Amino acid sequence: MRVVTLGEIMLRLSTPGYQRFVQSQSFDVNYGGGEANVAVSISNYGGEGVFVTKLPENDIGQCAINSLRQYGVDTKNIVRGGERVGIYYLETGDSMRASKVIYDRAHSSISEAKADEFDWDAIFKDADWFHVSGITPALSKSAQELTKVALMEAKKRGVTTSFDLNYRAKLWTKAEAQACLIPLMEYVDYSIGNEEDAESCLGFKSGSDVNSGKLDVTGYEKMLKALCEAFHFKGAIASLRESHSANDNGWSGVFYSNGAFHQSRHYEIRIVDRVGGGDSFAAGLIYGLLAYKDDQKAIEFAAAASALKHTIPGDFNHVGVKEVEALMGGATNGRVQR
Amino acid sequence: MRVVTLGEIMLRLSTPGYQRFVQSQSFDVNYGGGEANVAVSISNYGGEGVFVTKLPENDIGQCAINSLRQYGVDTKNIVRGGERVGIYYLETGDSMRASKVIYDRAHSSISEAKADEFDWDAIFKDADWFHVSGITPALSKSAQELTKVALMEAKKRGVTTSFDLNYRAKLWTKAEAQACLIPLMEYVDYSIGNEEDAESCLGFKSGSDVNSGKLDVTGYEKMLKALCEAFHFKGAIASLRESHSANDNGWSGVFYSNGAFHQSRHYEIRIVDRVGGGDSFAAGLIYGLLAYKDDQKAIEFAAAASALKHTIPGDFNHVGVKEVEALMGGATNGRVQR
Amino acid sequence: MRVVTLGEIMLRLSTPGYQRFVQSQSFDVNYGGGEANVAVSISNYGGEGVFVTKLPENDIGQCAINSLRQYGVDTKNIVRGGERVGIYYLETGDSMRASKVIYDRAHSSISEAKADEFDWDAIFKDADWFHVSGITPALSKSAQELTKVALMEAKKRGVTTSFDLNYRAKLWTKAEAQACLIPLMEYVDYSIGNEEDAESCLGFKSGSDVNSGKLDVTGYEKMLKALCEAFHFKGAIASLRESHSANDNGWSGVFYSNGAFHQSRHYEIRIVDRVGGGDSFAAGLIYGLLAYKDDQKAIEFAAAASALKHTIPGDFNHVGVKEVEALMGGATNGRVQR
Amino acid sequence: MRVVTLGEIMLRLSTPGYQRFVQSQSFDVNYGGGEANVAVSISNYGGEGVFVTKLPENDIGQCAINSLRQYGVDTKNIVRGGERVGIYYLETGDSMRASKVIYDRAHSSISEAKADEFDWDAIFKDADWFHVSGITPALSKSAQELTKVALMEAKKRGVTTSFDLNYRAKLWTKAEAQACLIPLMEYVDYSIGNEEDAESCLGFKSGSDVNSGKLDVTGYEKMLKALCEAFHFKGAIASLRESHSANDNGWSGVFYSNGAFHQSRHYEIRIVDRVGGGDSFAAGLIYGLLAYKDDQKAIEFAAAASALKHTIPGDFNHVGVKEVEALMGGATNGRVQR
Amino acid sequence: MRVVTLGEIMLRLSTPGYQRFVQSQSFDVNYGGGEANVAVSISNYGGEGVFVTKLPENDIGQCAINSLRQYGVDTKNIVRGGERVGIYYLETGDSMRASKVIYDRAHSSISEAKADEFDWDAIFKDADWFHVSGITPALSKSAQELTKVALMEAKKRGVTTSFDLNYRAKLWTKAEAQACLIPLMEYVDYSIGNEEDAESCLGFKSGSDVNSGKLDVTGYEKMLKALCEAFHFKGAIASLRESHSANDNGWSGVFYSNGAFHQSRHYEIRIVDRVGGGDSFAAGLIYGLLAYKDDQKAIEFAAAASALKHTIPGDFNHVGVKEVEALMGGATNGRVQR
Amino acid sequence: MRVVTLGEIMLRLSTPGYQRFVQSQSFDVNYGGGEANVAVSISNYGGEGVFVTKLPENDIGQCAINSLRQYGVDTKNIVRGGERVGIYYLETGDSMRASKVIYDRAHSSISEAKADEFDWDAIFKDADWFHVSGITPALSKSAQELTKVALMEAKKRGVTTSFDLNYRAKLWTKAEAQACLIPLMEYVDYSIGNEEDAESCLGFKSGSDVNSGKLDVTGYEKMLKALCEAFHFKGAIASLRESHSANDNGWSGVFYSNGAFHQSRHYEIRIVDRVGGGDSFAAGLIYGLLAYKDDQKAIEFAAAASALKHTIPGDFNHVGVKEVEALMGGATNGRVQR
Repeated sequence: MRVVTLGEIMLRLSTPGYQRFVQSQSFDVNYGGGEANVAVSISNYGGEGVFVTKLPENDIGQCAINSLRQYGVDTKNIVRGGERVGIYYLETGDSMRASKVIYDRAHSSISEAKADEFDWDAIFKDADWFHVSGITPALSKSAQELTKVALMEAKKRGVTTSFDLNYRAKLWTKAEAQACLIPLMEYVDYSIGNEEDAESCLGFKSGSDVNSGKLDVTGYEKMLKALCEAFHFKGAIASLRESHSANDNGWSGVFYSNGAFHQSRHYEIRIVDRVGGGDSFAAGLIYGLLAYKDDQKAIEFAAAASALKHTIPGDFNHVGVKEVEALMGGATNGRVQR
Repeated sequence: MRVVTLGEIMLRLSTPGYQRFVQSQSFDVNYGGGEANVAVSISNYGGEGVFVTKLPENDIGQCAINSLRQYGVDTKNIVRGGERVGIYYLETGDSMRASKVIYDRAHSSISEAKADEFDWDAIFKDADWFHVSGITPALSKSAQELTKVALMEAKKRGVTTSFDLNYRAKLWTKAEAQACLIPLMEYVDYSIGNEEDAESCLGFKSGSDVNSGKLDVTGYEKMLKALCEAFHFKGAIASLRESHSANDNGWSGVFYSNGAFHQSRHYEIRIVDRVGGGDSFAAGLIYGLLAYKDDQKAIEFAAAASALKHTIPGDFNHVGVKEVEALMGGATNGRVQR
Repeated sequence: MRVVTLGEIMLRLSTPGYQRFVQSQSFDVNYGGGEANVAVSISNYGGEGVFVTKLPENDIGQCAINSLRQYGVDTKNIVRGGERVGIYYLETGDSMRASKVIYDRAHSSISEAKADEFDWDAIFKDADWFHVSGITPALSKSAQELTKVALMEAKKRGVTTSFDLNYRAKLWTKAEAQACLIPLMEYVDYSIGNEEDAESCLGFKSGSDVNSGKLDVTGYEKMLKALCEAFHFKGAIASLRESHSANDNGWSGVFYSNGAFHQSRHYEIRIVDRVGGGDSFAAGLIYGLLAYKDDQKAIEFAAAASALKHTIPGDFNHVGVKEVEALMGGATNGRVQR
Repeated sequence: MRVVTLGEIMLRLSTPGYQRFVQSQSFDVNYGGGEANVAVSISNYGGEGVFVTKLPENDIGQCAINSLRQYGVDTKNIVRGGERVGIYYLETGDSMRASKVIYDRAHSSISEAKADEFDWDAIFKDADWFHVSGITPALSKSAQELTKVALMEAKKRGVTTSFDLNYRAKLWTKAEAQACLIPLMEYVDYSIGNEEDAESCLGFKSGSDVNSGKLDVTGYEKMLKALCEAFHFKGAIASLRESHSANDNGWSGVFYSNGAFHQSRHYEIRIVDRVGGGDSFAAGLIYGLLAYKDDQKAIEFAAAASALKHTIPGDFNHVGVKEVEALMGGATNGRVQR
Repeated sequence: MRVVTLGEIMLRLSTPGYQRFVQSQSFDVNYGGGEANVAVSISNYGGEGVFVTKLPENDIGQCAINSLRQYGVDTKNIVRGGERVGIYYLETGDSMRASKVIYDRAHSSISEAKADEFDWDAIFKDADWFHVSGITPALSKSAQELTKVALMEAKKRGVTTSFDLNYRAKLWTKAEAQACLIPLMEYVDYSIGNEEDAESCLGFKSGSDVNSGKLDVTGYEKMLKALCEAFHFKGAIASLRESHSANDNGWSGVFYSNGAFHQSRHYEIRIVDRVGGGDSFAAGLIYGLLAYKDDQKAIEFAAAASALKHTIPGDFNHVGVKEVEALMGGATNGRVQR
Repeated sequence: MRVVTLGEIMLRLSTPGYQRFVQSQSFDVNYGGGEANVAVSISNYGGEGVFVTKLPENDIGQCAINSLRQYGVDTKNIVRGGERVGIYYLETGDSMRASKVIYDRAHSSISEAKADEFDWDAIFKDADWFHVSGITPALSKSAQELTKVALMEAKKRGVTTSFDLNYRAKLWTKAEAQACLIPLMEYVDYSIGNEEDAESCLGFKSGSDVNSGKLDVTGYEKMLKALCEAFHFKGAIASLRESHSANDNGWSGVFYSNGAFHQSRHYEIRIVDRVGGGDSFAAGLIYGLLAYKDDQKAIEFAAAASALKHTIPGDFNHVGVKEVEALMGGATNGRVQR
């Protein structure tokens, strides 16, 4: 199972122990980013995660690569050069105090990379899947072109593709997003994202209110079905987060595919670190579809895997297939494993 | 908005990560104390917090000053001299294990300071508000005199005053407290404190049981009204804490003022650090009254600000006006702010 | 009150802050083990905890001894020699992710110790109680012999004995356990353990399902009574854990003794560290019986003490008698103790 | 004594304990930059350090301000806005392994600030001295203009000025530096920098070899004198570093002023952190000239103060006047001060 | 070998990693004090160290006891009660920056203890040696009385005594010290201290200059001999420290006893932590005299043991007899011991 | 450049900050072992380091693999299974206090591995070099067989081999070592090790005294030449360590090859971590010979690379070719690299 992902990996600087930024004399160092997180998950499941990006020729760039190699990700297709590694600062919230992210990612190497710097034959050799998110084209004009080329090169070679919509208002307007993304959807097999993302990224409307804290599952079936039809997706998937507080979230997933609607178990999570939760959901779906070839098991795997991610510090989801399958099977009681 | 506070700032030595004292090889260092915490809050809201105290001419005294300057507090009126910085040791509780505080504050510089060491003209120049708590006079005989002089000097200049009753059984008896505090009340505009404090500090009786875990709000209306009448306060305010466990508390505030009773939203909090919770409530009220000139908004600001304090390590409340107002507006779901 | 315990103390290496093993660049160092934990509890209650084991003549062995001496445990009867200190690696779970223990304890000094290396007269001089668990004989053939000799030497001197069944599937099979343990029960006054342990260790069957998350207390009365009758125990005790998640557990204790059934208060615990929870329960029972000579108070003490253990990092239960008695008296609200 | 400085303050991210970048899971957080470091020193000496810069309206910008306020620096003239806080990554060297700095400072707020964003009247009110370094104009075209305007505004108001040449090859070429800096020298009273900097920044040639590890002091007298004459400086100063290794350096200062040459004591330093060493030297000179009005004492103060800086972690020099004067007086034996 | 010591044990709060006080957000926690440090050394050498003091009935007092028990010190004769644990703050120096100690020890429990609170029969049962320093009587008037009683009680029982002069100018004047200490010398067998201490504490004059960094050994022979004669000591010992810098010290010891002068090897030390260096020297002498009954070996043991202390963080000297003897035998090359 | 190494990788548990074992509440976690360290060096130089071992199927085994992958080592030929990961505990020395290592490596997976568990064709495919040390066969009888098979398989395929003698007295006697190793030398091209190792491992005598702290270089030429002749080595290399203290060592290398003797520059090193110093020397030689095909440059590279290792915490040598070459070129002054 060879899964290629393309995007930005950032240096994450987070305050320890619920400190606010103004209190902290040290930052915990992690590396992460939507597509990188997916590649790590795939490798943790025993697959071959391949991450493609551009990173500067300095030690911070090397650290980002090492953080991926450590978990077995294939980093051979990472191009070196450019100005800097993008950064995001993270302060972990508690209770009604939300986690806070400050981005300092402009001018990163990947945001200025060009499509012809990459060797698409090498990248897609023996690939089963290609995954990218809406954050990557949002980085810059050249990144839009890069994303498009990558999707086209993937489809040209018959690689299945998934696209995590992931609208980021700090990076572009809805109009810009839609102008870029709608034409890309023809190269996409599976869309990932909820109604809010679909509306922002694709101009696709629906009636449920994701901020209400309550989720309307039947509304999701209609929405995902319509989305598949509108964009000719093989499937559309969404994670359903109920934000009770910064610590406590409800979590589950829905999946429309091959004319059927699938819903996962529902989990109540006490959160250690929710960054990367959505990425672990995407990775779980990809693994699930490739490993089980069963839509219901795939959505169950995606939901269980990403529920576990919320209990692990850092962007990456350090769980194995056995642990995810145990949770899919109902092992939610957290008894000590000796 | 210039708010002057007077009291003791202590070195706080706390064990990291739920360790008990007997387990710890290091202490986290913070500085805090009732009135100092109020001054920091005011500065964090963009006002001018002024903290008045006495601290020894050594590096630990300097550290206490720096901890205030760092957050913009005006420390120019802090007198240097005396023997030592008071200390409190803190062990953070969990579940049914309570947090534990050991005081080592006797003989501190402020406890031995005299009123004539301070330049009251400079201190109260352009001041809008003066705040002090019942802990300050409890420190020593000279501190009783100092507190009285400060209140009189404030009133002489037409500065609004607030007094946080805050009875501390380790520092004095109820009889001593009442003998000192009742005469001071004539200089006080706003009293802060619940029924238990009112009884201990002012000999004022009422019938609700604060240890029961359940709170009788209508009882509070009667109590606060009677308190205002008895002591001719412009207003009386109390925070209502429901201690479910060391981690989980209910939280809200009540305020009687100008013939009307106001009650804030109610919050359920997962606690990171509850020390300084009451001080952030007092600071919120002061800011709210000065900024909004609206009693209901003031109590809402006080309750929301202090709810947030419980999620932040250390004595100080590191939140801004926008964050408090967002919570007053109902943003309790803790979704990541990117 | 002199309480002797015999067993293995291990070096515990745990990842900080919810990190998984693959993320950690440092391990927190603690020492612990079933019987050692009991000895520390007894010393923390003001009794004389005596721990007997064998540890190598190196600094790691010395560290284990120092960890016990620090809390007042009598370590004079610890024999030095052998190959190594056993180790267990611990990763703290969260939510539906379980805590994980990896044992590396084979070939430890105690597992290869012989009964004649110990001075039983010195060990049991003035002893009131002897406690050992089913983990100790599970370590090796020689440890089985050692356990048997210790129990016989204790009974020969009229020392009351307790045995914590504690079946460990990684160390031996049920058949091996039963072949060893059933004959030992004639030297045991109090058995500690739930139905699952009774079945695994003693071949004793009953009908409740400990994995269901719900507990049938009346079933426990029947089970414990039958267990006492079958093995001629003075009493049988069990802790009842309801694993809602890795963070949240229900907790209480049941005790059948002298023809009567006693049940403790029930606690809902937010867990900091549940390792050693069962040992603190055993220690609480021993202390309770010796101090109060009242079965109901003993089970209440055991349950309250061990509920508090879950809130403290490390294997040892750092609480004093006053704290436990306060909780027995209902002080569950976790208000700050100043 | 009011000393104004203008420049960039950066977030410094350094690896703890001699770790290389590729080993580190956390970064120590400090803030620093040439002119900011000077302002902190002045405040630590009891003067009024004023730092002028532009910082973004986010928490990282606020942290930079707080780091200055904590030590009493006047930050009221810091403009808020722009894109980001510049960063430098630092790895501390040992023995023959050099310390390593990676800059990520492009696009910082100050590098894009315009001269008319600053209120020069407020900035230079009551100012005794203005200090800036060659790093500031090297940041960008607009920073060149800003530096020029600041120098002109200072001179217009009769403020004494100093300029630390500080050539940074990563930021501009020698040709660019000279084109910018030579015309600025007419506004400069005191130049700071060694021969290498004078050559790079001002095209000024001399014959000593700073990389040889040996220093030719008499050559320095000639060089500084010629420099003063060429650019009409009141004085020229240089620190003389002998790099024996990353840990051990010789250190002293030379100063040509009012027709006389002054040389300080020589120190052999075991280095804790040499970043900011040159800035503490500049600050020492400024303080020395303003406080003593004696060129020899000024260079002694500069050398002693900056020798001490090398023993303190972080960019800032946390020493007081008494400590520097004690060292000037020969107290080099490091006996414990009780 | 049972060695009793009496004095104050303090909480030591030290900044990590060469930080100055104004930089530190955490303090490392150790416990130590002259006589406590001696007791720990004796226990580390396999003897029975007994420490006598008074400590408050709170957790900080308990931590101090635990820190001693951990290393095998007999703490049974520590009286509980009084106000507080004394504190000292420590900042570790580097190069020409001296280490800095801030004491906050007034009003500690031991400083207010009375002689009749102690059970001298129990304390001196089977004791071979009693050791106390000049710091103990300097604490207070009652501590003077306590010191005197302890020395008398020791001598009454034929216990050998040693007295470490240790003048502390912050605690008393030379006149006060001499008035107290000179009469006590009749109970002292061995004095420990250099010429400076002898002058300050006993009014005893000699001509060498301890601040010069160079030491005159022959002068020491004369001084120690005269000292013995003047006060009828069995022996007098001094450590000779050459303070090259805060990091590098020369170190050796001299001993006059039984009409002969003995000088130890000389060590050049790179210092990790020099606090407790003198105490480890005293402990080494006591152990050496009791174990070897050979004055030359005793001074060699004292010098080697205390040289090693300088390489260990904290007040206590964690070395064993084998390590000290290896160093006495010339093993200074520091090759890895596998 | 593909370099294969075979041996044990251990979990290294070290105390932070010069703490002794008895003081430490946490251990720093690293992984390392002679041959693993060589593989990491090769990868850090841009070559293909391949490490072969056996590790258990648990998370600690996985951590060891990840530590290698992180730095680009090919871990595909690591066999999973067996009982445990070997451990060594490390305490870092200072001054005359030596670093201390406690091994707990018995029963590790690699010590019980069999030669037929490895796929020698895959391992040696395209290999240029095979390296193993005398520690590997010392682990067990099966490890002796494994080492022999590996060397034979390498030579069968024409791979150049090197053998680091590395006698470990804790693992076997000299007689055992010689019985095993002498016959293996026929498969070895390059021997690494000093005279002491040659004597212990190969029964080879010579007259210099490695413990004297002074080294006789001309004696080394004779010794290495004789060694080459005796065992038909292509070359023999030794590092020359002068242990001045635990912190300060002299360091250089000597190499006899192709009838010529080569000596490297000499370095004086202030040590951060000397564990792995010898391994980095071996790796430097291998890289140097393969990259430069010049014996003098190879020994210079080996000496410079390993000098740098001593400045880096952990077993692995995190330096690049450019850094080593700069040091070979004389850049020893440690000036900051910006």
